[in-house]
Amino acid sequence: MKSPPPSLESRFLRACARRDVDAVPVWFMRQAGRYLPGYRALRTRHSILDIAKTPELACEATLEPIRKFALDAAIIFADILLPLEAMGLRLSFVPAPRIERPIRRPSDLKRLASRPAGESLAFVGEAIRLARRELDGKVPLIGFAGAPFTLASYMIEGGPSRDFLLTKAFLRENPGAWTNLMERIVRVTLSYLRMQAASGAQAIQIFDSWAGALSPEDYRAGVLPATKRLFSGLKGLGVPLIYFGSGASGFLEDFASAGAGVIGIDWRIDIGEAFRRLPGKAVQGNLDPALLLAPRPVLKKAALRILRQASGRRGFIFNLGHGILPQTPPDNVRALAEWVHQYGRQGSGGGG
Amino acid sequence: MKSPPPSLESRFLRACARRDVDAVPVWFMRQAGRYLPGYRALRTRHSILDIAKTPELACEATLEPIRKFALDAAIIFADILLPLEAMGLRLSFVPAPRIERPIRRPSDLKRLASRPAGESLAFVGEAIRLARRELDGKVPLIGFAGAPFTLASYMIEGGPSRDFLLTKAFLRENPGAWTNLMERIVRVTLSYLRMQAASGAQAIQIFDSWAGALSPEDYRAGVLPATKRLFSGLKGLGVPLIYFGSGASGFLEDFASAGAGVIGIDWRIDIGEAFRRLPGKAVQGNLDPALLLAPRPVLKKAALRILRQASGRRGFIFNLGHGILPQTPPDNVRALAEWVHQYGRQGSGGGG
Repeated sequence: MKSPPPSLESRFLRACARRDVDAVPVWFMRQAGRYLPGYRALRTRHSILDIAKTPELACEATLEPIRKFALDAAIIFADILLPLEAMGLRLSFVPAPRIERPIRRPSDLKRLASRPAGESLAFVGEAIRLARRELDGKVPLIGFAGAPFTLASYMIEGGPSRDFLLTKAFLRENPGAWTNLMERIVRVTLSYLRMQAASGAQAIQIFDSWAGALSPEDYRAGVLPATKRLFSGLKGLGVPLIYFGSGASGFLEDFASAGAGVIGIDWRIDIGEAFRRLPGKAVQGNLDPALLLAPRPVLKKAALRILRQASGRRGFIFNLGHGILPQTPPDNVRALAEWVHQYGRQGSGGGG
Repeated sequence: MKSPPPSLESRFLRACARRDVDAVPVWFMRQAGRYLPGYRALRTRHSILDIAKTPELACEATLEPIRKFALDAAIIFADILLPLEAMGLRLSFVPAPRIERPIRRPSDLKRLASRPAGESLAFVGEAIRLARRELDGKVPLIGFAGAPFTLASYMIEGGPSRDFLLTKAFLRENPGAWTNLMERIVRVTLSYLRMQAASGAQAIQIFDSWAGALSPEDYRAGVLPATKRLFSGLKGLGVPLIYFGSGASGFLEDFASAGAGVIGIDWRIDIGEAFRRLPGKAVQGNLDPALLLAPRPVLKKAALRILRQASGRRGFIFNLGHGILPQTPPDNVRALAEWVHQYGRQGSGGGG
């Protein structure tokens, strides 16, 4: 990929590449979501899937937080489960996501379609094109997908899970079929993300929200190989790659070996410790989203602590340790983004 | 406390003290529980609270796994929430635990009783005496309590929680009242555990099951001081102290600084890595409980991997990374305990 034109050079993209920045960049997972009045109004008339599949609505949801707050990146409005439809599964939100006829046995894999997801998910590409046009170079636009493990867990459990018993049993008891499933997801996801990049996504985040349900050994044996293939297939796109996981502090080095240049972490580890354990990586995180419900002084103190720990580190992107909670007051989001810019300075020297 | 008589010297107690053992000791969190036919039969006629409050029934539930499997320690049947009743809160299981009129404001602390829990929970002491008599020195008996943070979270949330929003808000927004609450819990818990030790408990485990919901900073500021006072108050009892937490891999060193000699860990970290990060500590764990639902070869392979990583380490106690799941086949529990003894040898030299 050619270097982006100067107008698109941003703090966010520079920090992903571990280059100097004038202030710490900030965006928030689920920044386009239920805590915002515009999005809530949209949801009274449209389902989540309707919004995701209607480029004008997805574009509108993407832009609302950018218009309201001083954020350094937009992320396209979509759902990590959309590729499951492209793979032939039926998806609904009731309101938790539910997959009809989940994958329970190796023979269920035969039900999966193998048409390229890039085509059947073209509406996401169209939403990306619309959003890029509206953003007009103001801030870069992030595309995303679910990680192979997290998607496989939904396909097998049929919805959210606490213990992931069916997924773990499939992984451990049918290693051949499990590998087949992971490879199918990688193929579909590569096609989907290539389409997103071709449509204008300027960075890609892979969400492995449930990786922390696994032991390091299960992660290394059952998840890491396919995830490595995904990242190595994405390298050619020439955009920064972010890999986010929750609960993976116990095996952060394995997690980081999957191949992304930027590692997204949850709040269960000090950000300074994460930098020490991730030499050569940019780090994104990691405020507990519950703090956005706290009074301003409490929120500010916690944000400043993170900025202090990351100070002097190249490649720091301020974010939450998980998605914004629906109960979050939008004014706290505004204040937090402003504090990050006001107090967040990254040294040109220092560690990392 | 005097040294225990030779008949009570056990692999488990020796491993807690990081002394040589003939084979790796093993017990399982929730080994007295819903996966066992005898306990399930008991539950058709009695509630959880009835069993816990009737020493003969609690003793029977405690002994069932000891009679069936080659375990190296018994743990008294009780519930971590019992001290909440001693503190004046009303508790029910529907079937999830529910606390009536939870603590939501600092002024709610006035509702809490301050009578010594040792008296109102005397039935646990009686169950311990009965169980010690029945065990007759065969294996030692572990007493236990919930950690201050985990108990406080139930008192505030009123039951199980996913995000612990009310608890985190209380901790962050009312630091004075939070400290007061933690200190009250420490006082009640000390009285309760002194009574347990006086009744014959030969080791004490503190369950901080939800500590992993916190950031390292919240843990250090809001939880560690009271937890340190608890452990320092328990030191005089002269029995091994075990501190179990889940999701704390990101701040394991802080967690271990609370003062227990034995640290119980979940499956989200390699046991070898845990030993490296916990010099001078005995380590207990850490098989994923979901593996007890797997076919034998899968279970055996995972158990042997843990034994291999811990091999040569003094002070290793085999356990799960969380409680036994209700769906667990008892025969798998039997096989696992036997494999640990058969394949688990601790070197007299080596690391740690």
